[in-house]
Amino acid sequence: MSSIDILVSEVGPRDGLQNIKAIMPTEAKKAWIKAEAEAGVPEIEVGSFVPPKLLPQLADTAEIVKYARSIPGLVVAALVPNFKGAGNAIKAGVHKITLPLSVSETHSLANLNKTHEQVFAEVQKIVELLNTLPVDQRPGFEGSLSTAFGCTLEGGIPEKKVVEMAVRLIEFGCDEVGLSDTTGYANPAQIRRLISLVRAEVGDDKLQGIHLHNTRGLGLANAVVALEEGITTVDASLGGLGGCPFAPGASGNIVTEDLVFMLDAMGLKTGIDLDKLLRVRDIVIAALPGEVMHGFTPDAGLPKGYGAGGRAGWGVAE
Amino acid sequence: MSSIDILVSEVGPRDGLQNIKAIMPTEAKKAWIKAEAEAGVPEIEVGSFVPPKLLPQLADTAEIVKYARSIPGLVVAALVPNFKGAGNAIKAGVHKITLPLSVSETHSLANLNKTHEQVFAEVQKIVELLNTLPVDQRPGFEGSLSTAFGCTLEGGIPEKKVVEMAVRLIEFGCDEVGLSDTTGYANPAQIRRLISLVRAEVGDDKLQGIHLHNTRGLGLANAVVALEEGITTVDASLGGLGGCPFAPGASGNIVTEDLVFMLDAMGLKTGIDLDKLLRVRDIVIAALPGEVMHGFTPDAGLPKGYGAGGRAGWGVAE
Repeated sequence: MSSIDILVSEVGPRDGLQNIKAIMPTEAKKAWIKAEAEAGVPEIEVGSFVPPKLLPQLADTAEIVKYARSIPGLVVAALVPNFKGAGNAIKAGVHKITLPLSVSETHSLANLNKTHEQVFAEVQKIVELLNTLPVDQRPGFEGSLSTAFGCTLEGGIPEKKVVEMAVRLIEFGCDEVGLSDTTGYANPAQIRRLISLVRAEVGDDKLQGIHLHNTRGLGLANAVVALEEGITTVDASLGGLGGCPFAPGASGNIVTEDLVFMLDAMGLKTGIDLDKLLRVRDIVIAALPGEVMHGFTPDAGLPKGYGAGGRAGWGVAE
Repeated sequence: MSSIDILVSEVGPRDGLQNIKAIMPTEAKKAWIKAEAEAGVPEIEVGSFVPPKLLPQLADTAEIVKYARSIPGLVVAALVPNFKGAGNAIKAGVHKITLPLSVSETHSLANLNKTHEQVFAEVQKIVELLNTLPVDQRPGFEGSLSTAFGCTLEGGIPEKKVVEMAVRLIEFGCDEVGLSDTTGYANPAQIRRLISLVRAEVGDDKLQGIHLHNTRGLGLANAVVALEEGITTVDASLGGLGGCPFAPGASGNIVTEDLVFMLDAMGLKTGIDLDKLLRVRDIVIAALPGEVMHGFTPDAGLPKGYGAGGRAGWGVAE
């Protein structure tokens, strides 16, 4: 992390692919992950350890993890819905597991078919399992607070409930918590307030990451305010693929290409070669014919005279 | 202005319509302007006083100004490319005239067919004309620094050049200057820096407004940082219509609907009824069949439980 300012975590192979009907061939997934790692993306959430009958799109996650682990330097992350998934993820060799906990219990029931207490019971078992592992084989464990900024089923979510859940996840033994705008409801003022509230209770080091959707066009505005609040890890999906099948109306994640352009132009180091990143898109387009790919920067191209690498921000005073 | 926090200035009838081939019927323009004013939009740039053969889409600007002036409380603005246009705008009775000065001289020649010195000569004549008017009939006069964040023809624009031009516009007698990201090149760090640099030289009260495009998806991220820097007037175009015909690759203005949702959700008063604003879209769609309307909020709808009016921000702690 020391050579970069902001860690862009690509979640397209998980959050993107789970929300489209088409099943991307395993070899295409590998090509996508390889190309994005080669473009300098430091962390990729490559899949989810859920039953294949629920998400056949991600049935090859164990194989994908194994492949991704062979890419030098890449941090390989996976989503797990429960203890069983965590066990499989650990067996497959992930560096990081993320368990979603929906602050909206209604959404939790719809998404994971579990009450809050049932999810916390899974968290406890996962921590116990992790504690049996040698330190150098123990993956990181993040509790991701989904619907933290509002829920398509419940509506507004009390912020103190988000804070309580965050504190509890840390108390249960998660290494960190993340805030997830699953539904694309968040606005910049809310982002600033909630990050600040949660960090005040769990500590800055325990809340590093944010997961944003661009449902109402505010994704990057939310991201820039999150950075101002000290967030250093931002999830994004190539071409803005993804969303939430259980949150009707919620469209895709923020677009990796636009996020990286923004960070790069701001002079923030991501370790990502923007030109190479933009070319990765072709792999996904070829493997998912007919699928809509979002993003403005890919269509508009980079600004005239925008240098390749070594930039200290676009438009710095001359 | 006292009852609102941020002034959203609708520029669609000018910047939007000048950049599409279709000519919107005069009656449809009137219906659009009326509906948007009724939704609470406090200021609308209703047209441009340019030769009809150059922009036939705006040939009825004088009539539109006259109509818009009949709407109580609405501030009626118009663009003018030169002294002649300013004279016509004043004759038509506008409240505010804006003259674009492209910081890129190459762009100035392409857009206005004028060197910088020629544009300043026009500014001088306009100020002399304004000074002959009784104070209560004198419209406001803004010099808008276009291509301030980069130019599709010249590339990067030195920031000290932007500052110099801003200072000169104020010295020549403009009431205020505006910063315009004509080409959609701006990023949040640059927005913050350039607003700060210009304000340090001309004074905060002389730089109140910003004009942003969403070409690379950063429009609202730039807007939120501009607000943090103290900007109080933000241009936007309904459905993101517009762009710049002389800046190839530059797509539309930031979307009024998404901007107002963001401000409203942040608890900032705009005086605009979001539900009414979203319905204005239908008028434009009906009058411009086949034209692409942008915006995320119109498709996604408002968040569940999002109150109508009197909001103190979405997601405030409970």
